[in-house]
Order: sequence, then C-alpha cells, then structure tokens
Amino acid sequence: MRLSRYFLPVLKEDPKEAQIVSHRLMLRAGMIRQQAAGIYSWLPLGYKVLRRIEQIVHEEQQRVGHIPLLMPTLQSADLWRESGRYDDYGEEMLRIRDRHKRDLLYGPTNEEMITDIFRSHVGSYKDLPLTLYHIQWKFRDEIRPRFGVMRGREFLMKDGYNFDLTKEDALHAYNRHLVSYLRTYERMGLQAIPMRADGGPIGGDHTHEFLVLAETGESEVYYDSEITDLKFGNRRIDHDSHAECQAVMEEFTSRYARTDETHDETLFQQLPEDRRRVARGIEVGQIFYFGTKYSEPMGATVVAPDGSRVPVHMGSHGIGVSRLLGAIIEASHDERGIIWPEGVTPFHVGIVNLKQGDNSTDSACEALYAELRAQGLDPLYDDRDERAGAKFATMDLIGLPWRITVGPRGLANNKVELTNRRSGETEELPPNDAVARIAAIYEPVLNAG
Amino acid sequence: MRLSRYFLPVLKEDPKEAQIVSHRLMLRAGMIRQQAAGIYSWLPLGYKVLRRIEQIVHEEQQRVGHIPLLMPTLQSADLWRESGRYDDYGEEMLRIRDRHKRDLLYGPTNEEMITDIFRSHVGSYKDLPLTLYHIQWKFRDEIRPRFGVMRGREFLMKDGYNFDLTKEDALHAYNRHLVSYLRTYERMGLQAIPMRADGGPIGGDHTHEFLVLAETGESEVYYDSEITDLKFGNRRIDHDSHAECQAVMEEFTSRYARTDETHDETLFQQLPEDRRRVARGIEVGQIFYFGTKYSEPMGATVVAPDGSRVPVHMGSHGIGVSRLLGAIIEASHDERGIIWPEGVTPFHVGIVNLKQGDNSTDSACEALYAELRAQGLDPLYDDRDERAGAKFATMDLIGLPWRITVGPRGLANNKVELTNRRSGETEELPPNDAVARIAAIYEPVLNAG
Repeated sequence: MRLSRYFLPVLKEDPKEAQIVSHRLMLRAGMIRQQAAGIYSWLPLGYKVLRRIEQIVHEEQQRVGHIPLLMPTLQSADLWRESGRYDDYGEEMLRIRDRHKRDLLYGPTNEEMITDIFRSHVGSYKDLPLTLYHIQWKFRDEIRPRFGVMRGREFLMKDGYNFDLTKEDALHAYNRHLVSYLRTYERMGLQAIPMRADGGPIGGDHTHEFLVLAETGESEVYYDSEITDLKFGNRRIDHDSHAECQAVMEEFTSRYARTDETHDETLFQQLPEDRRRVARGIEVGQIFYFGTKYSEPMGATVVAPDGSRVPVHMGSHGIGVSRLLGAIIEASHDERGIIWPEGVTPFHVGIVNLKQGDNSTDSACEALYAELRAQGLDPLYDDRDERAGAKFATMDLIGLPWRITVGPRGLANNKVELTNRRSGETEELPPNDAVARIAAIYEPVLNAG
Repeated sequence: MRLSRYFLPVLKEDPKEAQIVSHRLMLRAGMIRQQAAGIYSWLPLGYKVLRRIEQIVHEEQQRVGHIPLLMPTLQSADLWRESGRYDDYGEEMLRIRDRHKRDLLYGPTNEEMITDIFRSHVGSYKDLPLTLYHIQWKFRDEIRPRFGVMRGREFLMKDGYNFDLTKEDALHAYNRHLVSYLRTYERMGLQAIPMRADGGPIGGDHTHEFLVLAETGESEVYYDSEITDLKFGNRRIDHDSHAECQAVMEEFTSRYARTDETHDETLFQQLPEDRRRVARGIEVGQIFYFGTKYSEPMGATVVAPDGSRVPVHMGSHGIGVSRLLGAIIEASHDERGIIWPEGVTPFHVGIVNLKQGDNSTDSACEALYAELRAQGLDPLYDDRDERAGAKFATMDLIGLPWRITVGPRGLANNKVELTNRRSGETEELPPNDAVARIAAIYEPVLNAG
C-alpha cells in the first residue's frame, strides 16, 4: 500500500477519553473510531490487524479439526427461554422487539443456538465427536464500557462448542482446545497463560482462562515463575490422541497459576518464595467443560452404541478476537507507539523515502516495494511529501516491526537502512539484501497457516 | 475435508416452507438453518460459499484501490437524525434502546456513519479521491421475509462509498465501480447486467442495478438481446483512467436494459423485434452517485485548491453478498441439485469411494485427496460407509462442479472416473491425469485474485 492512497488518520494529540495505553494508541494510530459508547468502527489499519488475528484463529481452529459456520447476530428470545437464561441474563443482554412485536436479542454468546442446531441435525453417536465454531460479532450492554476495544459493547469473538458422547471425550476436546489456543496465541506473539478459572454463572467443572501479563490487566494473577518459561513452539501433536493432548494440558496447567477469583493463598505460599509472582493480566480466552447443562434441558441427545438416548457432553471455548488487539498493544508498545509482533502486524515492513520527488530515492523505493510484494509481503510505502521526522514518527506510532529507510546519501553507496522497531537497531545494507532479510524474517509467519 | 468428519446435514425431503428453488436447495444441502423469520445460521457448507464470495468481493474492491474498513452493526440514532433519515426510514429500521435508554439502530446501510468518519478525519482535497468500503451484516425488518437468504432480514452486504472533489471525479468513481462489479460477478460465474435504475428514496441522478437473469427473479426486466453477448473477461484496465472506465461504462450501458421501474415502452419498441427480450431478474448489486446529499447536511467538506470549503461529491455502491448465494443457485441448478460455478464452489472436487473399506479404493482415494491438496485444491472426500447411489445423490445435491469416482473395477486398469456436474459427461482416466485435469481447470480460479 502507498500511504498517499491509504486512509490512515493518525492523531497528533493524545485523545482525552483514553485511560489506558492501548486505547490511546489505537485512537492515535487511526485504528478505531468510537461511534457510540463501547461501539467502534475499525478504520483501515485496525481492520487489517483484526483480520490477521481472525485468520490465525481460523487456521488454528481448522488445524485441529474444528468446523467453521456462522450464526446470526440476532437470536430469538424463545431459544433462551428454553435454557432459562432469558430471565437470568440481566441487563447486559440487549433485548430487541421487532415490528411484529416478537422478542429478539443481540447474541452475547451462542450456547443455546448451537445446541438447537445440533439437536435438529444430529442424532447418532456415529456423528461424534463434533466441534463447531464461529467468529461473529456479539453484544453485551456493559453498564460502563471503557478501555476502548478491551471492554466494548459490540465485540468480535470466536466461540466454539464441542459435542461428545462421554465426559472423557469431552475432556479430550477441552484439552485439544487448550493445545490449539497455546499455538494460536504464540502465533500472535503473545504469551497467554492458562489459569484455573471460576465456572461462574455459565457453570462448568473444568475451566481455564488464558491471561496475557500486562500492567493494565483487569485481573490480579498469581503464578509460579516457571510457567513463563513454557513454550508450545512448533510441536507436532496428533490432535486425535487423548494422551498427547492430555500431556500438553498437564505440562501447562500443573504449575500454580490463578486469577484472584480462584487464588488459594495457602497453596501459593507452598511455592519457593523466589518463584512466587503477583502481577496483572488481561483475559484473552477461556475454555469450559460444562457437561449436559444445555443438552439436557434442550434435548440435545444422541443414540448411544447400546441403543439408548443420552444427552451429549458439551463445552464452550472462546477467544476474544477484537479484545486481542488491545491486549497485544498493552503487552507490546513503548513511548513512541505500538510494536506489532510479526504474526499480526498490519503491514510487514514500512518503506520511508527520505527525499520524495528525488529520482534515485523514488525509483529505489518503487523497486523495493515491487520486490517485497513479489515475495508475498505486504509493505507500506510512505510516499508522502513529508519531513523525515514526521515519516519516522508515523511508522513508530503505527508499530510496523521493520522499516527500510531510503535516502540519497546511502543510495550513492547502494545502501539502505533496515531498522528494527523494537530494539531500534539499524543496519546499512544493499536494497536486495534488505528484501532478502525481510523475506527470511517473515518466512515462518507466511508459512505458519 | 473428509465427509465423515464434516457437518453436512442434508435433508432427504423437500422442506415445506421453501417457495423457490434456491431456498429449497440451500435447506436440503444443509447450507442454512432458519433461526427466526428472515434470520439464518450459515451451516458449514453455506458458510464456505459465503466466504468464497466475500473473498472475491474483497479482492476486486482492492484491485481498483478501494480501502476496506469495518463499521459496527449498531449505530447511534443521533447520526440518522442529522441526515433526517431516522424519521423517514419507517418500520424497516430495527430500532433499539439500550440500558441507558439511548436510541440505537441496527444499521440497514451506512451513508451517515461513513460520512461522519470522513468529516472527522479528512479536510483537504489532497486526500481525495477516497473510496472506503466494508462487508458487514445489516438488518432490515422486512414485513414479510421470504425466499430464504434472498430476502432475509439479517443479511451480509458490501457497501462502499466514494468521496471526490468534483462531480466529474465522482462519476469516474461510479464508472470504476461498474468496471469492478462486472469483473466481480463474472468471477462468480454470473452474468449480471447493469440496468438503469430508479434513484428512489436514497436519491441520486446516476444509478444502475446489476441483475442476474433467472425465472424466479423479483423484477421484470426488458433488454436488448445483444447485451448478453458482452463479456468483461480478463481485460486490463487502468482504474485511474477516466477514459478507460468511461469506455467500459458506455459499452455495457448503451444498449437498452431496464427494470420495470424505469422501463420506457416507446424506447423499447424502437429495438428490432428479434432483439427485444422480456424476462425476470434478481438484483445483486447497485451503484449510485448522489452528489452532496449527505455531505451538505452533515458538513463533510474539504478545502479545495482555491482555498474554499466545498462539500464532497459522494456515491454509494452495494453488492448483496449473502443474497448472491441464492442468486447463483437460481441461475445454476438442475433437478438433482445445485451446480456451483468453479469460482465459488465450496469444495473444488468431490471424491467418491465406491467401496469404502477396500484396501485398493481406500488407498487410491487417500492418494487423490493428498495430491489434490498438494495442488492447493480443496477436495471433499466422501469416505462414509454408504451406498454409491447415496454418495452420488449427495454430491449432486451439494453441487460440486467435478467428481472423481473411484471403484475397484476401474482401479484394476489404473482408471478413475472424472464427471462434470453440469454436463454429466464422464471420462475414464488414470488418477494422476484426473488430478492434473482438475488442477488445470482451477488454475485460473486460484490465480484470479
């Protein structure tokens, strides 16, 4: 993309309404615009990151055999009356009446609807195991929406639902979700720690939340420092193997890691003192096994091998897609702006032309732009007639992890500058070498799907 | 995908509620499920086609330089009070009140919101031309939703908005949209004819609808038979060139083609009798130039080169993404089911194993499956333990354009059958040749983006 043809409305001033850094930086970088309390437009740069995150979630869900579909945003109230949640849900549910005076609601989650789909179409244990998921906009009418997309009212979420014949199978689905989530977050450059969570009103014996450590996190978290050394990495797991998924689950959840809701001070004190950590975290996902909580009242049963009809064992598993943008920025920024991890950056590399209109720099930038694109990369070329300082400030603010700077002096020696946004380190090298370096850096990212 | 692991709830019986063929076939093929009047879940097969269509729309929009963003589904009523449409819109607008008694609405379209984004962030002619678009769920509370996704209440639409300094520039944007729409629909295997339309309540001097000919179309259409010979094909157009886009516009709109709303019988009668056609059509898109209708009341102005502040010239341009599934099926089916065009088919090819459990057929099918995937193709392997007849019926119903049939007798001579869904023609050939043929057929599809 050439910046002169893009729509990147960066703000010079810090917006007053933003209380936390991710909200401030998303507004300043022209990523979002508030349209009503807790309701945002995703401007082009924000939308691009949202799509990258969504794409990673899709790829990792499908890698483990989960099947995508799409349920609508609006739901019939009748479905929620069946589960009993229509009355229980309270004021966070946005209730709507259509022109024929029928009660609808803007879905805050989809347990009822997916259970309805299941019971209408599946009748035999032979069709199990089955995990269906979607990525769809949800609405929760928070009394005090704040922190930008971190606690918005209209938000994008991946919610997936497993249907299994037995509790054991359903717990395998639970473990498989944990495995896939570890990989999902790592691809986004995040360390998200699974922590024992509270079942809450949705119910559930087994549930873990995934928390990203960040000073501005809404939850206090307590953990064994050894846990931050764990990496999922590029392991190849047989996702059908109960044992392999169970082993990953044990590895990542056997150490102490809890939020304030489930914290047990006595257990925590049993850790060696130098391994005890108290910090703050942002929840970016949750997995739940809740058994037959919905399948029983809603009649989602299958014929078992012995011919009897049994309710299926279910779980639901969520990733906060839109909230992840905020979480990533909270975990990765500095005083100059955002620092995107390579896996989610809106553009892979920025090209800054120090002397727009100069034949040699213009043609060198055009050549870089074309060669990077030919490598399957997505560069942002700042071709505006602006001062170098303004161009650098924009690139730093929007957080592209790599920048190539092209000026007449360097070009005289066939050199451009390659700068790492995070470390600030700069290296001079020939343009072709810069392209090769960037291509090598992104090779694992482009092939991760 | 292996069918044994997929979720494809096909129906054996014709659903009673479906009045038109696309609705009936989408239900029977397990593509959609109604959740409330005019509100559908997109089951996995339907969701897959929806995503293919969405992807084509994205690629063709971005090819001509339009910039994607994403506006929320819910909007503040205040914005619509500014344009005067809050009161005008009537009962089709779904009006919502949140817990703080603020008036919201589920966006039926986005002229107001995009104008608000523009006026807040753009102030100079130097930032023009600009075309922003999104693909987002909309809601119109139709009094009598029917025909499945063809006239649903919650529907997915691409709506794009151009902002230009002058009427001339805005008419170029209009022409550029026409060019991109022609290519978009052709990639979906559709002939969508631009027809002169009526501005209607949204206003606008220049507007064309794109109609697909189909017996079940909601509009009567009148056209010169020469128009159906026009193809956009693989032309390379400079989308910045006013002259090149104008020439395409003239070529595709100079012949008589109108809906009943704009039909002029006197003009029509001037055509030679053998070229006069009266038929029915389905609207799948519309382009509009409406000048300063929104920019003036909402204060969307820029500083012109002479220093004065002028309201921008705008247009809005829509493609009915979810409705397109219905339109494609109406235009492409037979008595056995859907016939997907290669550009949008959910799976590129079906593999039918005639003797599941037989070593030779199983391993030949697995090899075909792996080789097709290695070519970047997306096969559906029917690996269920079912009769051949049931497998064929499912493949025909869901409409994959190509099928490879693997049986023990053919394999003994190193042959499989390759069948074209549309013509029914079958050819025997070695498995490797079948893969090569399928890869060659889809080469233009995979490289069209």
